[in-house]
Amino acid sequence: MAPDLVILGTIGIDTLKTPFGTADSVLGGSSMYASAAASFFARPGVLSVKGTDLAEKELAFLKEKGVLLEGIQTQGKNFRWSGEYTFDMNAAKTLKTELNSLAEFKPTVPLSYKEASFLFLANMDPDVQLSVLKQTRPKCVMLDTMNFWIEHKRKPLLEAIKQSNILICNDGEARELFQTPNLVQAAHKALELGVEAVIIKKGEHGSLLFGKEGFFSCPGYPLESIRDPTGCGDTFGGAFLSHYAKHGNMRKAMVYGAVLASFTAEGFGMERLKQVTRKEIETRFSEMKKFGEF
Amino acid sequence: MAPDLVILGTIGIDTLKTPFGTADSVLGGSSMYASAAASFFARPGVLSVKGTDLAEKELAFLKEKGVLLEGIQTQGKNFRWSGEYTFDMNAAKTLKTELNSLAEFKPTVPLSYKEASFLFLANMDPDVQLSVLKQTRPKCVMLDTMNFWIEHKRKPLLEAIKQSNILICNDGEARELFQTPNLVQAAHKALELGVEAVIIKKGEHGSLLFGKEGFFSCPGYPLESIRDPTGCGDTFGGAFLSHYAKHGNMRKAMVYGAVLASFTAEGFGMERLKQVTRKEIETRFSEMKKFGEF
Repeated sequence: MAPDLVILGTIGIDTLKTPFGTADSVLGGSSMYASAAASFFARPGVLSVKGTDLAEKELAFLKEKGVLLEGIQTQGKNFRWSGEYTFDMNAAKTLKTELNSLAEFKPTVPLSYKEASFLFLANMDPDVQLSVLKQTRPKCVMLDTMNFWIEHKRKPLLEAIKQSNILICNDGEARELFQTPNLVQAAHKALELGVEAVIIKKGEHGSLLFGKEGFFSCPGYPLESIRDPTGCGDTFGGAFLSHYAKHGNMRKAMVYGAVLASFTAEGFGMERLKQVTRKEIETRFSEMKKFGEF
Repeated sequence: MAPDLVILGTIGIDTLKTPFGTADSVLGGSSMYASAAASFFARPGVLSVKGTDLAEKELAFLKEKGVLLEGIQTQGKNFRWSGEYTFDMNAAKTLKTELNSLAEFKPTVPLSYKEASFLFLANMDPDVQLSVLKQTRPKCVMLDTMNFWIEHKRKPLLEAIKQSNILICNDGEARELFQTPNLVQAAHKALELGVEAVIIKKGEHGSLLFGKEGFFSCPGYPLESIRDPTGCGDTFGGAFLSHYAKHGNMRKAMVYGAVLASFTAEGFGMERLKQVTRKEIETRFSEMKKFGEF
């Protein structure tokens, strides 16, 4: 069975601390959040690596959601991350990172994945992102990144962006990548690199779209209780690309991205995202319609 | 002639520095930005104080726009402010403040102003805001404030808010005033004080409305060139309240607020706001419609 979209990303064992509680050694990583969110709209296939210390049964819920897992290698010890959010809940402070098997990860795209028309290159070493691009020719590639690669691997990162259709990153990354404090300018510089669309994620402030479908400002879903923002950006990305893959409307896809991310933020790790129902998603989507009406 | 709305605020002589240039001793102050913006939708009357060192002719453009100035006292030396914006253009660093005549300002509401149904209490000492509330009984009062009063005059500030219908402030002020990092929680705490609506201004990230007309997320107008953000918040407030006074729709009024503020940001001091035309305003308002559509 071929996936509709392939998601390259991490599988992590996360230890999280926020002002509202803690979670010790729970499943995390960009490919986990993204594929769980994507499963509501299309069939995602995960491309990642996990360690022998992460039990298969931890991923069983994804299988039940129709997520394909044959692109997951198992080797060595699992990637581990521990982070803390303080009062303002805006940025995580990384307490500890153990790359482990992620350090040696050389993805091999399974044959069945090669038919997928959509590819989400979640934040990862740009050289690894490029190696996946070499193995596959999807119709639409979306790339995410982070400050570390902007600072240390600028050249391969720009090359990977040029080979992509959609650039998705947060506001701080956009400013740093294009060396301007102005997000509109940053987006225009990204479009000059050849991508069709740029999505800038701004956490609680929502997200912006530039390019192909014009300028769109997507509100953040107004949450009174944010327990843990870990994985919100990857949730957004997974939901966005899977919805876009099926329906071809970037604006609607972003709103679904915002809705799914709002559920992720309500629980620790993936606990809330695991349980959310299609009905809950549609209820919030309808609310979002009203949030922008004037 | 009675104004439609009275605007209590400052008249300043500003010296501004941004990465894109400087302006030396130009007209500024909250009542100037707010009344110029308000003049497009209704007849504002300014309630303020200026010094003898500020020539009458500096205010002539406001008279031409139909702004009533009889509530302006002239005494002593004018309030002066000098500030600098660095790379990220988000917050001004105050270099120097000379309160001068503002320190002794005791507003007397002119008889003709007392018929106004709308009152904008722009950022000022809460005791001064309360003294104006004592002299007049408008149908709708909107109050703005800033960190200094939150920290030093919390009690009279809360009293003034309780006597208001709309609280307008920026995100940092909302967090500080209601002692929570979560803006949704902050807004709900404000509503518990008895205001009908809360507007939270977030600069480039747009603004949020809570209360009477439900939750509304108003995008920021996407500007590629921001030359000087001074006065944007006051411009927003003046345009908002004057439009609301005439048309009774808070959401539309906020969009006009965002549009007028976008013009203010494009020039140094008031230079762009002085020149903007009704046609330019309507063009951007139409664009704003599309920015939120999905």
